[in-house]
Amino acid sequence: MSDREPAPPEVQQRVRASFERQGLMAHLGARLTHIGPGRAHIELDSRPEVTQQHGYIHAGATSAIADSAGGYAALTLFPDDADVLTVEYKLNLLAPAREHIEAVGTVLKSGRTLTVCRLDVFDAGGRLVAAGQQTLIRLPTVSPAVSPGLSPGGDAGGAVSAGG
Amino acid sequence: MSDREPAPPEVQQRVRASFERQGLMAHLGARLTHIGPGRAHIELDSRPEVTQQHGYIHAGATSAIADSAGGYAALTLFPDDADVLTVEYKLNLLAPAREHIEAVGTVLKSGRTLTVCRLDVFDAGGRLVAAGQQTLIRLPTVSPAVSPGLSPGGDAGGAVSAGG
Amino acid sequence: MSDREPAPPEVQQRVRASFERQGLMAHLGARLTHIGPGRAHIELDSRPEVTQQHGYIHAGATSAIADSAGGYAALTLFPDDADVLTVEYKLNLLAPAREHIEAVGTVLKSGRTLTVCRLDVFDAGGRLVAAGQQTLIRLPTVSPAVSPGLSPGGDAGGAVSAGG
Amino acid sequence: MSDREPAPPEVQQRVRASFERQGLMAHLGARLTHIGPGRAHIELDSRPEVTQQHGYIHAGATSAIADSAGGYAALTLFPDDADVLTVEYKLNLLAPAREHIEAVGTVLKSGRTLTVCRLDVFDAGGRLVAAGQQTLIRLPTVSPAVSPGLSPGGDAGGAVSAGG
Repeated sequence: MSDREPAPPEVQQRVRASFERQGLMAHLGARLTHIGPGRAHIELDSRPEVTQQHGYIHAGATSAIADSAGGYAALTLFPDDADVLTVEYKLNLLAPAREHIEAVGTVLKSGRTLTVCRLDVFDAGGRLVAAGQQTLIRLPTVSPAVSPGLSPGGDAGGAVSAGG
Repeated sequence: MSDREPAPPEVQQRVRASFERQGLMAHLGARLTHIGPGRAHIELDSRPEVTQQHGYIHAGATSAIADSAGGYAALTLFPDDADVLTVEYKLNLLAPAREHIEAVGTVLKSGRTLTVCRLDVFDAGGRLVAAGQQTLIRLPTVSPAVSPGLSPGGDAGGAVSAGG
Repeated sequence: MSDREPAPPEVQQRVRASFERQGLMAHLGARLTHIGPGRAHIELDSRPEVTQQHGYIHAGATSAIADSAGGYAALTLFPDDADVLTVEYKLNLLAPAREHIEAVGTVLKSGRTLTVCRLDVFDAGGRLVAAGQQTLIRLPTVSPAVSPGLSPGGDAGGAVSAGG
Repeated sequence: MSDREPAPPEVQQRVRASFERQGLMAHLGARLTHIGPGRAHIELDSRPEVTQQHGYIHAGATSAIADSAGGYAALTLFPDDADVLTVEYKLNLLAPAREHIEAVGTVLKSGRTLTVCRLDVFDAGGRLVAAGQQTLIRLPTVSPAVSPGLSPGGDAGGAVSAGG
C-alpha cells in the first residue's frame, strides 16, 4: 500500500470520533493527520505545555502520541464493533526534537486477538527521533457500559484485566 | 534499604530542582512525593486533563510519570555534575486506574554509563496497574549550554545523540 | 506466597512434562529446578556449547531459559486444558555470567487472556545478571492436532497468529 | 543503501572472525549470510536441536540469531578497535516457523556510545515471524585481556557492568 493511501471513509470517521474523545490528546494539542489502512499519523507542535523549559519536546508527550498512533493504526483494520487496547509498548528515544513531531503507527501483524505495530516518530526535518514497537489487544465484545472508555491509549491498562 | 529511606538532603534538593523545571509534569499535575537512594515516587491525581472522557487515567500520563520516576531514581545515585537521559523503556499496562496513581522508579543496576530501572505504577488501592523496565544513560560531562535541558524524560531523545 | 512454595503435584507434573518435550532446553542442558504457583526456576550450568570461547554464558542461552521460565510460571496458574505462548519479551543484560545461571519467572498479572511475567536471571553468587518482562497469551481452546507443539518458548511465534 | 550492498572487505572479515568465535552460533548451526553497512543477516535451518518436538523453531533460537544479527549490524559501523555489547532487546513473536529462518539486523541509529537496531526475522516464504528492537553499546577501549570475550550476544550481559 502507498504511504498515504486513505482508509475507507467509515473507518476514518470511526477513528476520528474516538480520537476526539481522547482528553489527553486535546490537552497536549495533538492532531490526527492521516488515517490509512493499518496506519495512523499524529502530529504535535511544540508548545510550552509539552516541552522542557529549554525547548525540547518531552518524552512523555512523544510516547503519548506514538502510543495513540499505533492504537488507531490497529483500529483501522478491526470490524466496527471491536475496540483496541494497548497491552504494552517499548520506545527508544533517538534524538531530541524542538519544533514539531509526527508519530506514525504502522501495523506489522493484525491477528484475531493481538495486533503488533511499529512506532516511528519524526521531527520537522524528517529525522527519526524515536522508534518503538507495540502490542495491542482487540476486544471482541465490549458491553455498552464499558465501551466508551476503551479507546486506544486511554485505558490501555484495561488490556490484561479486560482479558482477565 | 527500607522502602522509604530518604536520600541525602543535597540529593533531594538536586532532584526536586530538576523536577520543578519539567514543564510536562506541572502540566499534568504530577507531584514528586518521595526521593530515596535509587528510588523516586511520582503521584498523579485524576483530573479531566489526564483522563479519558469516562474517567480512566490516560496511558500517556501513566507513561510520563513512570519514565520520570525512573529517571530521578537513577539521578539520586549520580555525582552532582552528572545528568541522566532515558535511552528506552518498555511498559506493560495491566489494569485501568480511575482516581490516583503512584509511579515508583527503582534502580536495578547503576553502572558508570548505563542505569537500568524497574518501573511500577500502583492505583489508590495499591494494585499494580502498570509495570516496566527502563534503560538510562549518564552523561559524564554536560556543557553549561546544553545541561539545563537535559533533565529526565524531558529530552530523553537526546540519549543516543548525546552518546553520538 | 513464599519464594519456594511448591505448586500442586498435578501442576508440577504438567509443567515438567511440557519442559521435557522442549528440545532446545535439553540441547542447552537446562534444568527445571522449581515450580511454584506463578513461579518457575530454570538453571543452566556453563558448558562450551552455551558459552563464548572465553567462558561467559551466551545471551542467547540466557534469553532462552528466561523465556521458558516465564512461560512455565504462567502455565502453573492455568487450567489443565489451556496452553501458553510467548507474545513478546524484553530483556536487559546487566552483567556477564561465567559458571551458572538461574532464571526465575514470576507472574505479575494473570488475566483470562494475557499474563505478564517478570524475568530475573541470577549468577552463582546471587547477582542479578539479566532482568526482563514478558507478555504471554493463554489459548482457551487448542485442537489436539495443534496442541502438542504449543509449549512455552517453543512456538511462541504462534502467539499472535494463534490469536489471529 | 541497497538491501544487499556489501560492507567493505575488511569490515566483513572482522565481523566474520567474530561470528566464528561465537560458540552458540555454531552449536545452533547458524550461518552469517550477508554483511552490509549497518546490516547483517543470519540464517538458521531447522534441526531437531533447535526445534520443538513438533517441528517449530524454538523462540530461544530465534532470539539468539536476531540478537547476534543486530550486534553485527552495529559492529559494521564501528572503527576496528571498538567492540559491541547488547544492552537490551525486545522481540515480538508473530508466527511459528518450521523449516528455515533468516534474521536481519538493521541499524536505525548509530551514535558514539549507543546504537539502536531493528530486528526482523523471516521464514522460508518471506513472512515476518518475529520483529524487535535492540539497544547496543560501543566499548571505546577494550583491554586485550577482556576483549576476546566481548563479541555481540556473547557476554552482552557485560554491557552495563562494562559501563559501570
